[in-house]
Amino acid sequence: MELTPNSFAMSVDAGGILEPWTSKIERRLSDMAGMYADPDAERDAIAAGDAVVYEVYQHDMPNHAGELVVCTTLLYPGKVGDEFFMTKGHYHEIRERAEVYYGLSGEGQLVLAKDDGAAEAIPMRPGTVAYVAPCWAHRTVNTGSEPFVFLAVYHGDAGHDYGTIETEGFPLLVLERDGEVAVVSRQEAQ
Amino acid sequence: MELTPNSFAMSVDAGGILEPWTSKIERRLSDMAGMYADPDAERDAIAAGDAVVYEVYQHDMPNHAGELVVCTTLLYPGKVGDEFFMTKGHYHEIRERAEVYYGLSGEGQLVLAKDDGAAEAIPMRPGTVAYVAPCWAHRTVNTGSEPFVFLAVYHGDAGHDYGTIETEGFPLLVLERDGEVAVVSRQEAQ
Repeated sequence: MELTPNSFAMSVDAGGILEPWTSKIERRLSDMAGMYADPDAERDAIAAGDAVVYEVYQHDMPNHAGELVVCTTLLYPGKVGDEFFMTKGHYHEIRERAEVYYGLSGEGQLVLAKDDGAAEAIPMRPGTVAYVAPCWAHRTVNTGSEPFVFLAVYHGDAGHDYGTIETEGFPLLVLERDGEVAVVSRQEAQ
Repeated sequence: MELTPNSFAMSVDAGGILEPWTSKIERRLSDMAGMYADPDAERDAIAAGDAVVYEVYQHDMPNHAGELVVCTTLLYPGKVGDEFFMTKGHYHEIRERAEVYYGLSGEGQLVLAKDDGAAEAIPMRPGTVAYVAPCWAHRTVNTGSEPFVFLAVYHGDAGHDYGTIETEGFPLLVLERDGEVAVVSRQEAQ
């Protein structure tokens, strides 16, 4: 496999977009149907405009262990019922691959889960460096009123496994309760 | 080898220090004697106070390909003769390992070199995401009047090879010439 031959500069613009990006993901509510805890609220929100939940701007790299992939995520503010807007979340296809997040603007939670049922949530704001340890599935949640923007760096060969989370979900939900951010177990929320 | 068991948060404080860090490097001019192009100016600068050139605040991780190491570097403003303050620079011990830099404050140049004699320099400022491609030695230079601070992310197993650069140097120097920043070849500078 060809490694990236030359070093180069990218930059994060004032809107949080990584330039130059080579691939972009845009996810609307309908692209992640079934992931929010309240199916009625989810169906209503899709019918009421199917908002864009987040965008990822990524510079793709060769799928090689020695490369690093950089992307920025713009996660918009909003809720489905009382559940804050969030990313789909994923494991890495190669489980033993970490990821580093750096908070640029806005605020949120990094929700983490492991095959053995362990789960935790880490608050993020500008300047936070969050370490997603190897083997942990990770999802971000916007708990604020402006876009939550962060930079991510991960291994070139890490890959994405979205399917496990689509089937199993995360054990923790991030909800608004009495005007506060509440991290609760899925069972407790139901 | 044990992988990092749990995810966790760090943060970059207002002074550019990564908290919590687990290892710190502080390099004075005398710690890198012989690396600046003008030996008389270097000797005089060491005698005149032996300034701290840079500090690195790092959170160490297991030496495993799936981990990522995070550190911040505070590179102070200054010159030795007409050559701007710089880091020692290194190859990764495992050559096929990239590195990602993110500019936090101040401004500088990322100087790159390869075994085959290729060299280039990339300007950096806040918001710049610089990709150090695998197999490239890398050094940073502060070309401004305030500390040049950046975040770096690299593979847990990358390692550092300082010796090759100590012996061979970089083919490019970053100098002040007529009040401007000039990137010149080592031969041209002599």
